[in-house]
Amino acid sequence: MDRHVDQELKELNKDILKMGVLAEEAIYKSIEALKNRDKDMAKAVIDNDANIDNLELVVDEKCIDLIARYQPMAKDLRFIATGMKINAELERIADIAVDIAQRTLEIVDKPLLKPLIDIPKLAEIAQNMIKMSIDSFMERDIALAKKVLLSDCEADQLRDVIQKELIEDFMVKDGATAPRAVQLLLIARFLERICDHTTNIAEDVIYLVQAEVVRHHPEKIK
Amino acid sequence: MDRHVDQELKELNKDILKMGVLAEEAIYKSIEALKNRDKDMAKAVIDNDANIDNLELVVDEKCIDLIARYQPMAKDLRFIATGMKINAELERIADIAVDIAQRTLEIVDKPLLKPLIDIPKLAEIAQNMIKMSIDSFMERDIALAKKVLLSDCEADQLRDVIQKELIEDFMVKDGATAPRAVQLLLIARFLERICDHTTNIAEDVIYLVQAEVVRHHPEKIK
Repeated sequence: MDRHVDQELKELNKDILKMGVLAEEAIYKSIEALKNRDKDMAKAVIDNDANIDNLELVVDEKCIDLIARYQPMAKDLRFIATGMKINAELERIADIAVDIAQRTLEIVDKPLLKPLIDIPKLAEIAQNMIKMSIDSFMERDIALAKKVLLSDCEADQLRDVIQKELIEDFMVKDGATAPRAVQLLLIARFLERICDHTTNIAEDVIYLVQAEVVRHHPEKIK
Repeated sequence: MDRHVDQELKELNKDILKMGVLAEEAIYKSIEALKNRDKDMAKAVIDNDANIDNLELVVDEKCIDLIARYQPMAKDLRFIATGMKINAELERIADIAVDIAQRTLEIVDKPLLKPLIDIPKLAEIAQNMIKMSIDSFMERDIALAKKVLLSDCEADQLRDVIQKELIEDFMVKDGATAPRAVQLLLIARFLERICDHTTNIAEDVIYLVQAEVVRHHPEKIK
């Protein structure tokens, strides 16, 4: 492998880091919009998604082009293929920020149920998992990738707690709260889906580094 | 490109078709389980997901291996890269069948709200979109891929109708229905997410075919 391809692989790393930063920022802003009842910020998240979609396509093309031009050996090929997958996961995360922003616009003019239960906490976990998963790719850090997988349990549990509270303490007790409670329930589920995307990234990183199949054999993670 | 690689590309086509059939079958069975209150079938969907996960990994490895061994030219490379993406979408669709089966197990012992509103209809649309998207890939049929994109609006609208009915006619009027109504609302959203995955497949197919056409017949792109 000549030094020119190494340089291009470094550029690819940087592009994926940029996608990660944009995805994380979109999630941060969508939750800030929810917390501060900020319509303009919610709309900005929705408007900015086209830029992230475009960057995804650019990165994807770069990957195909890299493979076509350099016909890389197995190790570099696997790195590029992993880059393509992570790129796609990050674009999906940004899409979920749009989902959250849309749900926020639905409830922003209605009275708050109560200060958002544990949704901000779940959002923090999700943002942290995005950061860790991207860092694990940048640093080829298996220990950090495994930390992402472990965090997913916490996210699942917190989503279940939020869901139970919204159903039992709000919807069942007072049906009139249902339209707002459903939107918050969906936002909690969106946040947990972000966590799932980050575990996909972490699994790809582990696979890349270890060339070991972990996605469907979590029992192998110690 | 020698005939041996052509043969392997045909095998890849078949593997992806098989993934499509398994994903569609998983969705069909999860909805049958819901309609017939059939716990065993719901459990079978959950248990069978490991097989689909395994096939995804096998197909993914085949793709990397094909690229590494044959160092294919741009056209075949793009086909293989698209195959990897579609493979991943189909695995996600099968995961959603598991989500539906799990929600079904939550409500199977409780009285029905009413005969499932338009969920079976939405499920039919989703299954049809899976079929069309896979066929569009098999036949490199842009017109069919575009039909998938158009069907997505119908799916979105039907999900919104189902959601509105569940909130306004059940949860708001009688809070006690909320625990069951929420599960049905989530199932409707899962089905719509399947449709989103099929539109991703359709977009990949359009991109694949247009890239082939652009190279050889740029005048054909409208």
